[in-house]
Amino acid sequence: MAKKINIGILGGTSYTGVELVRLLAGHAMAAIDFISSRSSAGERFSKIFPELKNISDAVLITPDEAKARPVDCVFSCLPHAVSAELCMPFIDKGVKIIDLSADFRLKDPAVYETWYNHKHPAAHLLAEAVYGLPEHYRKQIARAKILANPGCYVTSVLLPLMPLFKAKEAQIEWVIADSKSGVSGAGRALKQNTNFCEANENFSAYSIGHLHRHTPEMEQELSLAAGRPVTLTFSPHLLPINRGILSTIYIKTPLSAHECSRIAAAAYGSEPFVRIREADDLPDVHNVAFTNYCDIAFAGGADGHPVIAVSALDNLIKGASGQAVQNMNIMFGIPETTGLLR
Amino acid sequence: MAKKINIGILGGTSYTGVELVRLLAGHAMAAIDFISSRSSAGERFSKIFPELKNISDAVLITPDEAKARPVDCVFSCLPHAVSAELCMPFIDKGVKIIDLSADFRLKDPAVYETWYNHKHPAAHLLAEAVYGLPEHYRKQIARAKILANPGCYVTSVLLPLMPLFKAKEAQIEWVIADSKSGVSGAGRALKQNTNFCEANENFSAYSIGHLHRHTPEMEQELSLAAGRPVTLTFSPHLLPINRGILSTIYIKTPLSAHECSRIAAAAYGSEPFVRIREADDLPDVHNVAFTNYCDIAFAGGADGHPVIAVSALDNLIKGASGQAVQNMNIMFGIPETTGLLR
Amino acid sequence: MAKKINIGILGGTSYTGVELVRLLAGHAMAAIDFISSRSSAGERFSKIFPELKNISDAVLITPDEAKARPVDCVFSCLPHAVSAELCMPFIDKGVKIIDLSADFRLKDPAVYETWYNHKHPAAHLLAEAVYGLPEHYRKQIARAKILANPGCYVTSVLLPLMPLFKAKEAQIEWVIADSKSGVSGAGRALKQNTNFCEANENFSAYSIGHLHRHTPEMEQELSLAAGRPVTLTFSPHLLPINRGILSTIYIKTPLSAHECSRIAAAAYGSEPFVRIREADDLPDVHNVAFTNYCDIAFAGGADGHPVIAVSALDNLIKGASGQAVQNMNIMFGIPETTGLLR
Amino acid sequence: MAKKINIGILGGTSYTGVELVRLLAGHAMAAIDFISSRSSAGERFSKIFPELKNISDAVLITPDEAKARPVDCVFSCLPHAVSAELCMPFIDKGVKIIDLSADFRLKDPAVYETWYNHKHPAAHLLAEAVYGLPEHYRKQIARAKILANPGCYVTSVLLPLMPLFKAKEAQIEWVIADSKSGVSGAGRALKQNTNFCEANENFSAYSIGHLHRHTPEMEQELSLAAGRPVTLTFSPHLLPINRGILSTIYIKTPLSAHECSRIAAAAYGSEPFVRIREADDLPDVHNVAFTNYCDIAFAGGADGHPVIAVSALDNLIKGASGQAVQNMNIMFGIPETTGLLR
Repeated sequence: MAKKINIGILGGTSYTGVELVRLLAGHAMAAIDFISSRSSAGERFSKIFPELKNISDAVLITPDEAKARPVDCVFSCLPHAVSAELCMPFIDKGVKIIDLSADFRLKDPAVYETWYNHKHPAAHLLAEAVYGLPEHYRKQIARAKILANPGCYVTSVLLPLMPLFKAKEAQIEWVIADSKSGVSGAGRALKQNTNFCEANENFSAYSIGHLHRHTPEMEQELSLAAGRPVTLTFSPHLLPINRGILSTIYIKTPLSAHECSRIAAAAYGSEPFVRIREADDLPDVHNVAFTNYCDIAFAGGADGHPVIAVSALDNLIKGASGQAVQNMNIMFGIPETTGLLR
Repeated sequence: MAKKINIGILGGTSYTGVELVRLLAGHAMAAIDFISSRSSAGERFSKIFPELKNISDAVLITPDEAKARPVDCVFSCLPHAVSAELCMPFIDKGVKIIDLSADFRLKDPAVYETWYNHKHPAAHLLAEAVYGLPEHYRKQIARAKILANPGCYVTSVLLPLMPLFKAKEAQIEWVIADSKSGVSGAGRALKQNTNFCEANENFSAYSIGHLHRHTPEMEQELSLAAGRPVTLTFSPHLLPINRGILSTIYIKTPLSAHECSRIAAAAYGSEPFVRIREADDLPDVHNVAFTNYCDIAFAGGADGHPVIAVSALDNLIKGASGQAVQNMNIMFGIPETTGLLR
Repeated sequence: MAKKINIGILGGTSYTGVELVRLLAGHAMAAIDFISSRSSAGERFSKIFPELKNISDAVLITPDEAKARPVDCVFSCLPHAVSAELCMPFIDKGVKIIDLSADFRLKDPAVYETWYNHKHPAAHLLAEAVYGLPEHYRKQIARAKILANPGCYVTSVLLPLMPLFKAKEAQIEWVIADSKSGVSGAGRALKQNTNFCEANENFSAYSIGHLHRHTPEMEQELSLAAGRPVTLTFSPHLLPINRGILSTIYIKTPLSAHECSRIAAAAYGSEPFVRIREADDLPDVHNVAFTNYCDIAFAGGADGHPVIAVSALDNLIKGASGQAVQNMNIMFGIPETTGLLR
Repeated sequence: MAKKINIGILGGTSYTGVELVRLLAGHAMAAIDFISSRSSAGERFSKIFPELKNISDAVLITPDEAKARPVDCVFSCLPHAVSAELCMPFIDKGVKIIDLSADFRLKDPAVYETWYNHKHPAAHLLAEAVYGLPEHYRKQIARAKILANPGCYVTSVLLPLMPLFKAKEAQIEWVIADSKSGVSGAGRALKQNTNFCEANENFSAYSIGHLHRHTPEMEQELSLAAGRPVTLTFSPHLLPINRGILSTIYIKTPLSAHECSRIAAAAYGSEPFVRIREADDLPDVHNVAFTNYCDIAFAGGADGHPVIAVSALDNLIKGASGQAVQNMNIMFGIPETTGLLR
C-alpha cells in the first residue's frame, strides 16, 4: 500500500474542522498528524467532540507547536486573515495548503480589502493560489500548492451557473440567487441569532442587497467563465436545519430550462459529485445531506419568465470539508472519490 | 353588551379550522353555533384536538345538519369546489359567508377552470364576491355577503407589492416572489413529503415555473392595482417549521428601497396589522408567528439591482383564519382588532 | 372600569420577561409602568424583541431608575440572588412582589445556601413569602406580599403528585420524575449546548443523580403535602423544541392508575388551568404549548408496576410567566383567568 | 480479493431498508443482488429515494421474482408475520437470513401470539434462530442461519443492563426504562401523529404501562442473563428528531454508579461499537447519530436513589440496519467493523 498522506489541521474545533477530521478518519490514504487549536490546545479532540471518541482521540496542539510537524498537507479551518498568516510557515516549507477560509479565493487584493476590511496578509501569493472547484479547475488543482477552497453558498451558485456562462448561446442578462443555508453555515461561535430558540421555528433573510462576502467570489468566477464582467444579486437566508444549502437561482436567458439542463448535463456528465435531475424531480436538501453531492435541476423559463436553477448541497461537505478532501485527492494523485462515498 | 355573532364553521378539522375555532373561542363578540365535519361528525372537537379541551368541546355535526342552524355567519375551511357547494344553502338564506378556499377569489371563471381543472360550481356569484384583503378593500368588505379570504402565500406577496403597483412612479418591469412556507400550509391530510422524517431537516422547492395555484390570484390583484396586465414569477418552498411564511420579493423598479418603504409606510401607516420595518431590521417568521401581523421591509436596489421586499406572516393567522376574523369584524361593524391581539 | 394594576418588570430581556410582557400587554387590568434591564437600558424593548413592535415599545430603564417608579406590583425575571436584592427596595415600600427566581421558594435558608452556593440575600423575609402554586395555596396567595413563583419543572412534577401525597391511601414509597424540557428552559444567555446545531436533532440528560436545583423545591413541597420528609429522584433532559415540559413520573403506590386519576380529578375538578385526561389519551406538549394549562393523566400500575403520571405544560407560561400572572390576578382580587385564555 | 457476499433485501422501501442499502453500497465485501417491494416493484430504487441516485439505481422486483435469485444472504425489512412468511423459501434453500422484524426474536411462540395477535407463521424455526446482539451472542451468531435482529429500543436497554443482570453482585430489584425515540422509529407509513406539524415541537409518551411490543423481548433477554424471570417497566416516547434513541434507565441495586460502570467497561472493553462514558460526560443522541455506536454511562445511586444508566444509539443503525450488517459480517467471517466505520 502506498504511503499515507501526512496531514495537519489548523483550527480543528470549528464545524468544518470536526467534519474534516471525521472524513479523514475514514479516508484510506490519509493519516492525521496533528490538529491545532489556540483555545483548546492540550485537550483531547474527542473530549470536545465525543462523537469522535475512539475515532480521533488526538490531543490538540498549539499553532506554534504545529509548525514543526513534518506534514505533507495542511488544511486550514481558521477564520480569514488568521488563516493566511498561520499557513505561511507551511507554505515556506513547501507543504501543500488547502485553505477553507476566504484568504486565497479572491484574485484581486483590493477586492479582498473592500469586503474583509483589512489588508491582505499575503497578497503576493494570490497569483499562485488555485480556486478549488474541481469540476472547473481540475488540471490546475492537480498542480496546486496553495488551494483556495470555495465558499459553501458559492459552490451551490457556481455549479449550476458556470456551464451556462461559458456557453455563448445562454446570453445571460441577469441572475438572482436566492439561497437558504442550514445554521452550521454560521459557524460554531455563539451568537444570539443562532441560539436554538431564536433559530428554531424561524426563517430570516440577512445581508441582502449586495452585502454578503460571498458575492465578490461568485462574481469573480462567473466573470472568468463569461469572459466579461458579471454581477449578480445574492440573497442569503438562515434555515432552521443543521446542514444543507438550497439555492433557487433566477436566470434571464433566451434558452429554455431544458436547454440549460442539456448544457449542464454535458458539462457534468462524468463528474462523480454532480447529479443533474429533472424539472419534475427537483433537488432538495435531504438528498445531499451528509454527502459530497451537488444536485442540480432547471425549471421555468416559458413565456418570458426566467429559467430557474435549483441546486442543493451539504454546506459542510461539498460546501467545505468534503470538497477540500476532493481537492486533496486530486492534488496527491489518488482516486478523486476516496473517502467521499459512504 | 351587544348580541354576539352566531357562527358556523364548515370543515373544522383542518389546520385552518382548528386555528379559527381557537381564535373565535377567545373573541368577545363571537359565539360558535356549530362546527361541521363530514368524516368526524359525532365526535367531540376537543377529542380530535385535545389542545381545545375545556375551550371548545362541541360535538361535530354533518354538513347536512349544519344547513338548518340559525347562524349569522359561516366560515368555510373546506377544500375548493366542495366549499362553494356547501356554502350555497347559506348564501341562499342570506347568511354572510367567509370562504377560506379559493372558490370565490378569482373573478374570471375561465381562469378558475384552467387552474383548478373543473367547472366553477357557482360562477354566477363571482361578481358579488369581495376579495378580503382588508388593507385594500375595507369598504367593500364592510358590505360583503360573500367574502373570499385570500391565500396565505398571496397575502405575503400582495401586501408589499400592492402599494407599489398602485404608485405610478414605481414603473415595475418584473417581479419574482421567492416564498417559503411552514408545513401547515400543506394542510392536515397525510402526504409522504410532509411526513416528519421527510420534511424535517429538509428544504425543497415545488411547483416552480408558473405552476402554483396561488399565481393567478396574485396576478389578478396586481393587475387590478396597476391598471394593466401583470404577471409574476412565483416560487414556493417547503420550510421545516410548523407555521409562517417569509417571501423574498425581487422588484425591478427605478425607485430605491427607501422610496418603496416610504410608499408602503404611507399606505399602511394606520393599519393595525401591517408593520413596516427597516432595511437593517428585516422581518422574520418568529416575530409574526401566532399573530395577525404582516411585517414588511425593503432593501437592495442600488447599482441596477432589483429592490428586495421581505415580508413575513403566520400562514394560519394573517394568511388564513386571523384574516378571516379580521374580515368578519369589518363585515359586522365591530372593532377590527377584536380577538386578534393577544 | 376599575383602575389598572400598575406594573414594573425587573429583568425584562429574559425569555420569561418577554413572555410576561406579551401576556400583560393583552391583560385587560394591567398597565406596564416600566421594564428594567441593566445591560439594555436606553433601548426600546421592541427593538430587542421585534415581535412586540406596536405592542410594547417601552424604553428599558435601569434597575436604579426603576426604584422611584410608583408601581403596585413588581415582577422579577432576574436570576437568583440578584433578584432578592433588587426586589428589596420595592418590598420596603410595600409594593407586592412576584419573584420568578428561586430566591423566595425555599423556606430553609440553609437549603438555599447548599444548592445555590451563596448566603441568602434576604433570609429574614423567607417566612413571609408565599409559594405561588395557586391550586394548592390560593388563600395564602390572595394575602401575599412576596410571592415565590414556582419553577417550571417543579410545577409539572408537583401538580400530579401533590394530591396523591396529601391522600393517605396513596402510601407512596418512592417517586422518580423523568422530565423533558424545551430549550427555552435553559434561558436566553448563550451556551454551547443550546447553540442551534448542538441542541437540534439531539436529546440529552443532564444534572441527573440528585444534582438539579429544582429538586429541593420539589422535596420541600411534597414533604409539606405528605406531612413527612419526602425525597425523589429527578432527571431533567434537554428536548429540541422551543417550549414545553413533559414529565413522566413513576410512583410506587398500592393504588391503581384509575384511583390516582380519581384523586387528582377530585382535587382539580374546578381548577381553570388543570385538565385531567385519560390513560388512553395521554397529555403531550403540543396541547399545552402557548397556554396556561397543565394536562395530567395516570397510566400503568398493574402487576406490581409503578403508576405512571404524565404531565405537560408550557415552561414559559404555566411554568413561569403565565402562572405569575395567575398569581397576580389572585393577589389583586380580579378573575383568575384574566389575560390567560387566548 | 475474496468473492463478495451476494445479497437480497426484502421490503427495501422502509426506513430500515433504505438505510441498509446505503450501508451495503459502501461495504467492500457486499454486492446487492436484488431489492424487493410489493408496492413499488418495477420502479427504480433511486427514483423513490433520490439520495441514492448513482449509488443504488436498481429496479425493484416483486417478492415472487426474488425467490429465484441466487443469493448468499437475505435481509428482511418487512413487517412482522409477512417477514417470516417471505423468508421461508430462502430458509428452505439454505440461504442465510437476517430478519429485522420481530418474527424470530421471541423464543416462545405463545408470547409472540399474545403480543402480536396472530399465530406465529414458522414456530418450528424459533429454536434455530439466534438473537443478534453481537456483544452477547457473537459465537452463536457466527454459526447462525436465521438471525433475529434486535429491536431498536431493546438494544438501547439491553446493552447497559445485560452485564449487570449477569453480575450476581448487582442484585437488581427493579428496572424502569424511560426511552425516547426519534420519529423514524415509527416507520415510513403515514400516520397522523408522525405528520410533521403534529410531531414537530411536540413530545409525547405512548404505550406506557406494559403495552409496548418491545417489552417481552427485553424481558426474555434479561431473564436469560439473570437466570431468573425478570420484568421491567418500559415507557417509550416520541422525540421530534429524525433518528436516535436515548434511554434513561433506573436500576434498583446496592451497587454504586461507579461499580456499574466498571462492570460494563469489563464486559465491553474490547467491543468496537460500545463506548462507556463517564457520569460527568453523559451520552447524547448527537454523538451516535449516523453511527453504529451505542454510548453508555452510569450516574446517580447515592443515598438510596436508583443508579441511572443513560444509553444512546441511532435507531436505524445500531438499532436496526447497522447491527444487521454487523451480524452479517460475523456470520460470513469478515472483519466485524467492515462498512460500519465512516
